[in-house]
Amino acid sequence: MNASSRTRIAVNGYGVIGKRVADAVARQDDMELAGVSDISADWRARMVTQKGYRLFGAASEHAQAMRDAGLDVAGTLDDLLGASDVVVDCTPKRVAAKNVEIYRQRGIKFIVQGGEKHEVTGHSFVAEASYESALGGDSTRVVSCNTTSIVRTLTALKHAGLLRRARGTLLRRATDPWESHLGGIMNTLVPEPGIPSHQGPDARSVDPDLDVITMAVKVPETLAHLHYWAVQLTRPADKEEVLDAFRASPRIALIRMADGLTAINAVKELMADLGRPHDNLYEVALWADMLKVEGDELFYGYMVDNQAIVIPETVDAIRALVGQVRDPHESIAKTNAALGIGAVVDALGGR
Amino acid sequence: MNASSRTRIAVNGYGVIGKRVADAVARQDDMELAGVSDISADWRARMVTQKGYRLFGAASEHAQAMRDAGLDVAGTLDDLLGASDVVVDCTPKRVAAKNVEIYRQRGIKFIVQGGEKHEVTGHSFVAEASYESALGGDSTRVVSCNTTSIVRTLTALKHAGLLRRARGTLLRRATDPWESHLGGIMNTLVPEPGIPSHQGPDARSVDPDLDVITMAVKVPETLAHLHYWAVQLTRPADKEEVLDAFRASPRIALIRMADGLTAINAVKELMADLGRPHDNLYEVALWADMLKVEGDELFYGYMVDNQAIVIPETVDAIRALVGQVRDPHESIAKTNAALGIGAVVDALGGR
Repeated sequence: MNASSRTRIAVNGYGVIGKRVADAVARQDDMELAGVSDISADWRARMVTQKGYRLFGAASEHAQAMRDAGLDVAGTLDDLLGASDVVVDCTPKRVAAKNVEIYRQRGIKFIVQGGEKHEVTGHSFVAEASYESALGGDSTRVVSCNTTSIVRTLTALKHAGLLRRARGTLLRRATDPWESHLGGIMNTLVPEPGIPSHQGPDARSVDPDLDVITMAVKVPETLAHLHYWAVQLTRPADKEEVLDAFRASPRIALIRMADGLTAINAVKELMADLGRPHDNLYEVALWADMLKVEGDELFYGYMVDNQAIVIPETVDAIRALVGQVRDPHESIAKTNAALGIGAVVDALGGR
Repeated sequence: MNASSRTRIAVNGYGVIGKRVADAVARQDDMELAGVSDISADWRARMVTQKGYRLFGAASEHAQAMRDAGLDVAGTLDDLLGASDVVVDCTPKRVAAKNVEIYRQRGIKFIVQGGEKHEVTGHSFVAEASYESALGGDSTRVVSCNTTSIVRTLTALKHAGLLRRARGTLLRRATDPWESHLGGIMNTLVPEPGIPSHQGPDARSVDPDLDVITMAVKVPETLAHLHYWAVQLTRPADKEEVLDAFRASPRIALIRMADGLTAINAVKELMADLGRPHDNLYEVALWADMLKVEGDELFYGYMVDNQAIVIPETVDAIRALVGQVRDPHESIAKTNAALGIGAVVDALGGR
């Protein structure tokens, strides 16, 4: 594929998601990172040019502040959108909702993140569940980290004909590592006020057939989320059958306590050892030896890297909107290969 | 009741449980704290005499070390047992198992804590479920904090004819506040390696009829445990009916997010404001407004103070072994009144 046929991607917002999307897009041979737009003129913006990406100011005053800081600025968001086929919005909540009006006026395809409501695009995206309904569309929403993990795992059980209903408890990390200087050390647990928490209904925005209810609580650590599930199966099953269902998903990594992966920090360290950027865990990391089947009931726990899990989904969402790759499995395989997804599973012998 | 008819209680081990048991026993008008035995000769032992309790060394060398530290020592554990009717063992695991042989040889009634196995006494105790089968016995085991909370809440649902089966996820606090200088700041989550975790089977040591499965994870805070439950009811029910079932337990406190009790630290602060010793939360604190009923399914979360919840149970266990108070409700009401249990519920209008 030559450069001229590549899809040109704008990344608007260079925070924990935007920086990872930019890196992931830069690794795809059918995409070209047209540039990155942000409002920051500090070290974060400097990293954009350091990496060789073109830097744009969200508005002219931001571009000017960047120039005043000695940064090489290619223009404004407006210029960036003019040079792009798809824009991935990675700005904070509320900001994104306003940006959407701009994207619509300019007629550029766009992707928003899970902080936005389903109604913003009318389509919610997880590659293994809703790629095909996004094909050629104007926009989609990549659902949140927790919801992505829920849809991935329950879709795997559904495809195996095993899923009746799922009830989950979600331990949500208190804050992102990058923002952990903004709050004090937290020595408490903060339940979400309502049951069900929003993730269950949100999963149904991707697949309305899922019978899923979630409860959630904020816990004082910064590494990842952790989910525990009690699933009613359609029938009694054996453990190997359930593991095979999860193995069939290319983005679920089976890990083992017995391998020394006894806590979420150990899994993050493994990602660092694998040389992944930002120690990203793109997969749902599910403990195979902890998993238990009791008759027609299934119990398991898994880890969700809230900064990384949506990155491969975002790459696939771009391809779905562009519409050239029609088969979700082809896009997923392409993205996985570019990001090294699968290596951890192979390394651990999980397949 | 005059002093001579009071049951004389020895507390062996003055740690987080022993110190609370001693204080609780001292508040009962039908009991007399014969003394406290420990191995420490530092500030902890000094608190025993400071409170006016008689201090004993676990062995003669401990008694000597206490004397060398200038403490007023009444003798050894052997002396204490000779002056007591019941001994409550609050020593660490393994130590307690050895002590049991001594208690048996001396023919003194004894109580062990939940760290010991059911087989050590052959009886496991939660006042609202197994008081009567402990009546006049030689010994019993007050089950662990988590198990106590499980039996209390599920027994309440069972008594209302609502319980079919219960599946819970337990967030276990990383360490006791008193021991938190022994470990570094923990920025991770540590799943228990196996599903089911031990608490579900342990609850069945109290009531074999309970259909309960638990999963557990260690979280980095020191205040309390937090449980989330998904319960299959025997039939569809409404929320008020379920709340009434919980209200019928004198040791479940219904609390509300809407009252500002939005996290476990807020509940502990309330206990401090109530003037409870050590800010003890003896009750299961269950969020009434978070609780959700969906058809024949029930979802809720509650808080368990792992240092305090077993204290009233231990007091009742003493009465059960002595056998003078035959009615569990009478003992529970007596203990609750002495410890101020109920005040929080009344204060919050939960009833």
